[in-house]
Amino acid sequence: MAANVQDVIMLLGDSITQGGWEPHGFAQQLAYVYNRKLDVVNRGMSGYNTEWIIPVLEQCFATRDDRAPLPTVRLLTIWLGANDAAQPPTRQHVPLAQYRANLRALVRTVASPDSPRYSPATRVLLLTPPPVSEPMWARRQAEKVPPRALDRRFDVTRAYADAVREVAGELGVHVVDVWSAIWTRAGEKEEGLAEYLRDGLHLTESGYNVVFEILMEAISTHFPEMHPDKLQPVFPYFDEIDDEDPRSSLQKRDAFAT
Amino acid sequence: MAANVQDVIMLLGDSITQGGWEPHGFAQQLAYVYNRKLDVVNRGMSGYNTEWIIPVLEQCFATRDDRAPLPTVRLLTIWLGANDAAQPPTRQHVPLAQYRANLRALVRTVASPDSPRYSPATRVLLLTPPPVSEPMWARRQAEKVPPRALDRRFDVTRAYADAVREVAGELGVHVVDVWSAIWTRAGEKEEGLAEYLRDGLHLTESGYNVVFEILMEAISTHFPEMHPDKLQPVFPYFDEIDDEDPRSSLQKRDAFAT
Repeated sequence: MAANVQDVIMLLGDSITQGGWEPHGFAQQLAYVYNRKLDVVNRGMSGYNTEWIIPVLEQCFATRDDRAPLPTVRLLTIWLGANDAAQPPTRQHVPLAQYRANLRALVRTVASPDSPRYSPATRVLLLTPPPVSEPMWARRQAEKVPPRALDRRFDVTRAYADAVREVAGELGVHVVDVWSAIWTRAGEKEEGLAEYLRDGLHLTESGYNVVFEILMEAISTHFPEMHPDKLQPVFPYFDEIDDEDPRSSLQKRDAFAT
Repeated sequence: MAANVQDVIMLLGDSITQGGWEPHGFAQQLAYVYNRKLDVVNRGMSGYNTEWIIPVLEQCFATRDDRAPLPTVRLLTIWLGANDAAQPPTRQHVPLAQYRANLRALVRTVASPDSPRYSPATRVLLLTPPPVSEPMWARRQAEKVPPRALDRRFDVTRAYADAVREVAGELGVHVVDVWSAIWTRAGEKEEGLAEYLRDGLHLTESGYNVVFEILMEAISTHFPEMHPDKLQPVFPYFDEIDDEDPRSSLQKRDAFAT
């Protein structure tokens, strides 16, 4: 942890991750609870699929040789599929088998010892894409100028969510199952989705609240050492500053060194 | 701009800056509008005064020698005074003359060519502390266990806000005058402050909206080249990705190289 930097949580994904900086978005809520402990960097790119995000990750995640002065990524969330699951001829479409291969490539970029970006200090979580509401997304597509056809299907996105769980099981990575959490809370009914989806594809505040809740549950369960309550602030709380010698009590600390 | 990092906006301050990660806080709103262009790092530390924040800045801002692989801080906001203006014997108190000297030291840390942290690429903005509501803060202090006396005064914080403007004028740094903007919107009446202050000292969503508005105005006026609309996303918008050769169109770019 060099001067100028703190360790970070990196959020890799599509527009649903990018929108995480909205008020009550999951990035905003993470930044709030990890304030003074870890920085949150949002690498969500609207419209991106797994195919396009692979070179992005390679350019956002330092190689081992470059890493020394740079922030350590303590948690990497990988959340794609909403665009991969778009129907051809939509150019965002990535076939299911290739989607699985891309997820493996993304995880291995940081988790495989033979990768130049291998980072044993980085915890990885795979998130499933949220369910799609076909009627809502069809309306949104029809409103565009010129109008567009429905290019996302409930059953297809469900199959992509299934693939995330399969790949995660195969690689031994933990899953944050956004698809199931939202579908369950919607009462497994199409009309229940309006509370969680703003346009049939992207999330409302309630949707992001679900994501934040199950993400924090996953951290508590699988990586309890990085729950915000277990970390110390990098600089001390003000009532811990030594009145006699403030400067020596203001030494930068490792958030994890508690 | 090395792998893993993007240029950043750094927010230096006290609890009012730290609270910027609340929904609709000014950090959240900056992160939202600068998404995919600049990262926002919050270096707000609850209860800190200028005296304590000086060693913090020295440890958060890289020296010239260390800087090469690290993110460039493109904008540094310095927002303190709410705690410096606390009345003795409150240990956060910093006398007005020392507060002025500390503000000069903070600005010179990055703006003075003979500083080891001199950074001509960094734009600096000084923010004035918000006005204090004595009745609201007295109530909040009385509710604490054990109850505490009123330790912030409207007139004293106003004098600290005046000092920010004076130091800024002296050093040729631009000011974001939070004190005047909120006091004006409050109709220059004590009872008007409740809209903008949550406890007489810290900001409500409306208060942060004012800060975000005048901060963006300052950027537009003084540093128009770094308005978010003038920056390109570090990775291209998805409809700019080359279908034939996606990887070559996915080269990381300088947000400022438009």
